[in-house]
Formats: sequence, C-alpha cells, structure tokens
Amino acid sequence: MIRVEAVDAAEDRSEIAREIMRGLPEWFGIADATAHYVAAVSELPTWAAWTDSGAPAGFVSLKTQGPRAAEVFAMGVRRELHRRGVGSALLAAAEEHAVRCGAEYLQVKTLGPSRPSRGYEATRRFYVARGFVPLEELDGLWEHDNPCLMLVKRLRHGIEIHPVTGLPEVHEGDDLAALIVERAGIENGDVLVVAQKVVSKAECRVVRLADVEPTQRARELSGDRDPRQTEVMLRETARVVRSRPPLLIAETRHGFVCASAGVDASNAPGPETVVLLPVDPDASARRLRDRVAELTGRTVAVVVTDSFGRAWRQGTTDVAIGLAGLAPLHNLHGERDLVGYELHATTIAVADEVAGAAELVMGKLNRIPAAVVRGLPHRGDGTALELVMPAERDLFR
Amino acid sequence: MIRVEAVDAAEDRSEIAREIMRGLPEWFGIADATAHYVAAVSELPTWAAWTDSGAPAGFVSLKTQGPRAAEVFAMGVRRELHRRGVGSALLAAAEEHAVRCGAEYLQVKTLGPSRPSRGYEATRRFYVARGFVPLEELDGLWEHDNPCLMLVKRLRHGIEIHPVTGLPEVHEGDDLAALIVERAGIENGDVLVVAQKVVSKAECRVVRLADVEPTQRARELSGDRDPRQTEVMLRETARVVRSRPPLLIAETRHGFVCASAGVDASNAPGPETVVLLPVDPDASARRLRDRVAELTGRTVAVVVTDSFGRAWRQGTTDVAIGLAGLAPLHNLHGERDLVGYELHATTIAVADEVAGAAELVMGKLNRIPAAVVRGLPHRGDGTALELVMPAERDLFR
Repeated sequence: MIRVEAVDAAEDRSEIAREIMRGLPEWFGIADATAHYVAAVSELPTWAAWTDSGAPAGFVSLKTQGPRAAEVFAMGVRRELHRRGVGSALLAAAEEHAVRCGAEYLQVKTLGPSRPSRGYEATRRFYVARGFVPLEELDGLWEHDNPCLMLVKRLRHGIEIHPVTGLPEVHEGDDLAALIVERAGIENGDVLVVAQKVVSKAECRVVRLADVEPTQRARELSGDRDPRQTEVMLRETARVVRSRPPLLIAETRHGFVCASAGVDASNAPGPETVVLLPVDPDASARRLRDRVAELTGRTVAVVVTDSFGRAWRQGTTDVAIGLAGLAPLHNLHGERDLVGYELHATTIAVADEVAGAAELVMGKLNRIPAAVVRGLPHRGDGTALELVMPAERDLFR
Repeated sequence: MIRVEAVDAAEDRSEIAREIMRGLPEWFGIADATAHYVAAVSELPTWAAWTDSGAPAGFVSLKTQGPRAAEVFAMGVRRELHRRGVGSALLAAAEEHAVRCGAEYLQVKTLGPSRPSRGYEATRRFYVARGFVPLEELDGLWEHDNPCLMLVKRLRHGIEIHPVTGLPEVHEGDDLAALIVERAGIENGDVLVVAQKVVSKAECRVVRLADVEPTQRARELSGDRDPRQTEVMLRETARVVRSRPPLLIAETRHGFVCASAGVDASNAPGPETVVLLPVDPDASARRLRDRVAELTGRTVAVVVTDSFGRAWRQGTTDVAIGLAGLAPLHNLHGERDLVGYELHATTIAVADEVAGAAELVMGKLNRIPAAVVRGLPHRGDGTALELVMPAERDLFR
C-alpha cells in the first residue's frame, strides 16, 4: 500500500526530493539542475508517497503561476516502484490542492520528443495518459540540446459533457463500444451515455412493417398512424396507461411508462421499419461497459437513454432506461441541511439528470448518439429499473 | 458591419498582415520581428476582417502545435477600429477552425506584465476577457527585456457545468446576482442556473408557521405533517391533483404540477418557517439576467430551478420554473432525420435538461444553489410557463 501525504517541513521536502532524484540519474543526471530542484522544493507545496516500510516512494512539488494556473514543478518515483500507481496518486494529490487553490490549468515541462530519450518518452506518456496535452516544444527556453516540452491540463471544477462525433450509421451486430471508443477519449470514471436507438439497432431490435398484420384493436388505437406500427407498439405493451388516438401512452414490458411503448420510426434503418427498445437495456449497458473495459482498460459507467414525455409538462427529456456502474438514485433521506432540518423524501434521480444533460450535446438530426460525461461526483451501481415507481407507490397508474 | 473571411492566397496573407502591422508600431515596432511575421503568415491559416468599404480591418493567423493544440500566431486590428468587436470576430473564426481541426487547447504568446506597456496591457485584457488564462511568464524564451507571457484556453467540444461555490446564506433583499457574479467567472452566452430556494429567500417568499391557522381541510390532508404547513401549501394551490396524506400533488397558481405546491421546509431560513415558490419565477429570472448584464456587461440566460417528482418514475429531477434568454423547448417538428423520415412530435424540453444537468453539480447539503452552464448550443428566448402542458392536451389532469 502506498500512502500520499503533504510534507510540511522545508528540510524534509528537500531531503526526500534529493533521495528520490539520486536514484533516477536518467532523469536527474545534471548535478546543477538537481541541486536547483532540491533547493527550490523546500519552499513549494510538496507531497511524498510512502511505502508500508516507511521509505519514501516518490514526491511531487507544485508551483503556483499566478492565481489561475499551477505547475508540476518536480516529480519523481523510485525506479522499482514505477507502474504501480505511485505517480498517479502523487499527481492526484497535487491536482486536488491546485483545484482547491483556484487554479484552472496545470502545466508541466519535460524534455521534448525532438531529443530522443526512452526515460522521457515514458514521462511524456505518463502525463498524456493523465489528461495533459502537449502544448509546444519551446525552443530556447532551456539550454541547447534540452528542448522543453510544455504540457497543459485544464483542471476540472465541475462537469464536462462531450459529444461523440463521427459515428457511422450503426447496423446489426456492430461492435458499438468499439465504434465509440475509437472516436472518444475515454477516461477512468467517465459516464458514457448512449442513445437507445443505436443500441437497439446494434442488437437488431428492428421490425419491418411488411411482416406485421394489425389486429382490430391496433386499428382502433391508430388514428391517422399506420395500424401496423400500432400493432408493434401493442406487442411491446404490458398495459395501456392512456390513449387518445393516435397518442398511446403505455407501460412497456420492462415497466417504463412512455409514448408508443418506446417504438419509434425516426432514425430507423429505413422506411417501413420501426425500432423497439432493447430487450433488457440494463444488460445492454453492462455489456457496453464490459466491452469498453476490455478495449481500453478503463472503468466507465454506461447509461442507455431514450426521450420520454412527461405528465403535465411539454416536451421530452432524455431519461435512463439502462445503466451500469452508476447508482440511479441519490438518496438524501435522513441527511440534514445547513440549519439542521432533516430531509425526509429527497431522492434525486441522478441517472435521469445525466441522460438529460447528455442530450444537450447529442443530436437527433446530426448522428450524435453518444456523449461522454466527465467529472460526475456520484458513482455506486444499480439498474435503470430502480427508477420505475413501484405500483403500490404510484399515484398515477 | 465587419465581415471575417479566410484568406487563401499566400501573398494576400502577407500583404494584409503587413498593412495592419504597419499601423500598429506600438505592438509591431521591431522591424525584424515584423518581417518574420509577414513571411510566416503566408504559410498559415489566416483570416481577415473587412469593413464595408473593402479595407482590411484586421487579421489573425493560426499555427498548429501538434495534433491537439494550436496557437494564435499573430493578430492585429486597425487602431481606429479597436473596441468594435473586430478582434472578437477574428478570434472566433480562428477558434472555430482550431476546434474543427481537433485542437483541444489554444495558446497565445504576448508581452508579459513585468515589462510595463499600455498597449500590451490591453492585449492581455483582450485575451483574458475571451477566456484565456495566463499560464506563465517564460523567462528567456524571447530576447532580454521581452518577457513572454503564455496564455492558454481550453477549446470547448461540448458543455461545461461549473458549480458556483462560496455563496453565503441568502437573506431577504440580498443582491443575489451580485453575490453570484462575484464568485463565478461569467462569460457571454453562459446559462446561469439558480435554485428556486435562494431566489425565494432573496424575494422574501418565506412564511412563519406561527402566523398560520390551519383550516379543517388542511388538517385532513396533513397525515403526520404539521397542518400549518399543509395550510400554506393549500394557499399556493390552484387544484389538488392527487393526495394521499401526507403526500399532496398540486397544481400551483403558476400552473406547475408538483409535490406540496412547491412549499418546502428544507434549507428554510430557520425552524418553523417554510419557503414558497417565487410569485413569478420568469420575472425573477429576467431580473437576475438584467442585473448580471448591469454588473458585468455580459449577456447570459438565466434558469430558476426546482426539484420536481415525476409520474411513474422514482426520484426528483430539477426542472425550469423560471427562465430568461433561453427558449425552453427545441421543436424539431417537420425536420427530417438522416433517412428522410419527418419528425412529427419531437419537442425537446431543453430548459428542463439544463436544470437537471446543473443539479448534478449543485448541492442541497453544501450550499451550492447556483451553477454556470457553458457551451449550450441552443438559445432563443421564452418563459418557463411554456413548459406547462395546456389543459386541453393534458392526458393526466
């Protein structure tokens, strides 16, 4: 186990940095430069990583650069502990401190790629894998033969929602997770939001109307809609909640209450076809999540969404119909507010809010059926079926 | 009127740059450096701004720095056209191009503050006002006496949601807009999301239960709740939609259907007090918007939110109960999807999705009653009352 702690005493900071750098001559081989680092870190916020045996495993020092930016001034990890998460833990501590101090950007300078070095190549890879982006190799900032690469990372003070653009039309059997991760820079902890329509297409939940013979009931509920489409809706319906032809509000076999039992002709694979909801959208989300882990080694949550209408309010919002790796509800029951009042019935449908947030960058007209939500504080696990109101508590059945 | 256009021919790029720089000796007074710029921009993507008379008003040239970063290489605006939006329009064109090319960060180098210069102070202000953050004054990158300040801006490929932290408890008569803008870096085009609770407190929509005498009906509908609280709810109620004591779903005088007619004891100013919805939340939003413009000169949209339960689904999501500067609904009616299918009834409740998205960074327990949503593509204008389903279309009255 590695423990990361702030180092408060100036002499401790320098001593730990000296000891770590001494074991890393490939990076800290220039005596003058190293002496400069040792002296400077004594004055800088510094964290050390400690092994169980009490030996320093690594250190990082942070330098503020004005009120809105900070710099990873120096960092080192004992060679035999490389690739064990020590650097990640140190960097996380430094970033957390920088965010607390109000910094919006974190920069780091390291040897640029124009002078080949296996050690520094690994250093650059380390930072890039943790969200830093090479900004420029700055000619002349350091002495000749030491090209200085500056990398920068925007520090997050909230949530980011990125559309996944450039996806092709999705067909039966497509590896949807692969199509997405090829086009999205997935990071650990991201929530990947995927529109039901592409999940259903990949899972072949498509019905050709030519194969459907409508019943009398379907004809009655159709209004001016193709009765074969209504027939498909009724086959997906466990209970008709309201109907005013052609409008049909149904409880699906999953338990979701929505228009048309989730059956939709828009963005279908072609005319005369309709798309159904996945058979088990929670299982679809879980499979996507597992496949993303397999392809990238990263742990994400997945939310499968659909656009649902609401009682009493105009317009649809996207909600979660399938999920994996995320608790759908954030229950504040029993927590107290700032004046001590106990919250009684406050449960927030986080997964539905994530779905709606992602819709803001997704597009029904421009083939953006997926988005990445980054920085969501809540996690946990659960299913979208937990979002369905149990019949005995439902005032609106 | 200013028109910004890409300049394609190498000689045109250099000629326009030379002409603009010639009129700006305060910035481009070193002949060698200017000659270098003139030569270099011939090879770089360059945009020119044109006045109605056909004279070049300014130019900007962009340099890529690897696949993920770009640099504002050179920029100038004819002196007599400063502070007319020419620079903003040029920068916007360059940023749009950089985003399209996949750049995540945009940097610019200019003279640092350690060498005083009124012209360059204006230059730094220009970039900071457009979202750039000073990263570091780089000693030694440029020749002596020319300290190089590097500024950086994360280019947006989606939406960002920032919590507004550090707000004090809000009291009657507080200037809520001022409290927020002091703590949030508001930019033009942002959507400011504010929880109803603080709006109501600032507007003194607080009732002391000691002043309330419950009617018999309030006692009947109270269950185990304080009947005085139920009495307050009934006074806010236009129509009881459902009741299962103590649960009361009501249509408020505004037309919103929600639990307890929007009356809430959590986060109230003290025990034995409850908070009501604002009298006219759309007007509250408009006042906040106007006040933000007055204080900052920036144009934002404002959404006032509350946590509403939903029929058939567990948990609350935040929705818009007041808004200004944003169209609540995005109507796709009549638009065609990629296979040519005409969308019939697709209207997205954008304002409710914005409200829910902001809730993800707001906190009922930690005094974060406001958030800034940046990068939302939709705008327009309207009111939250447009989100209320008209009675004649409501299947669930």
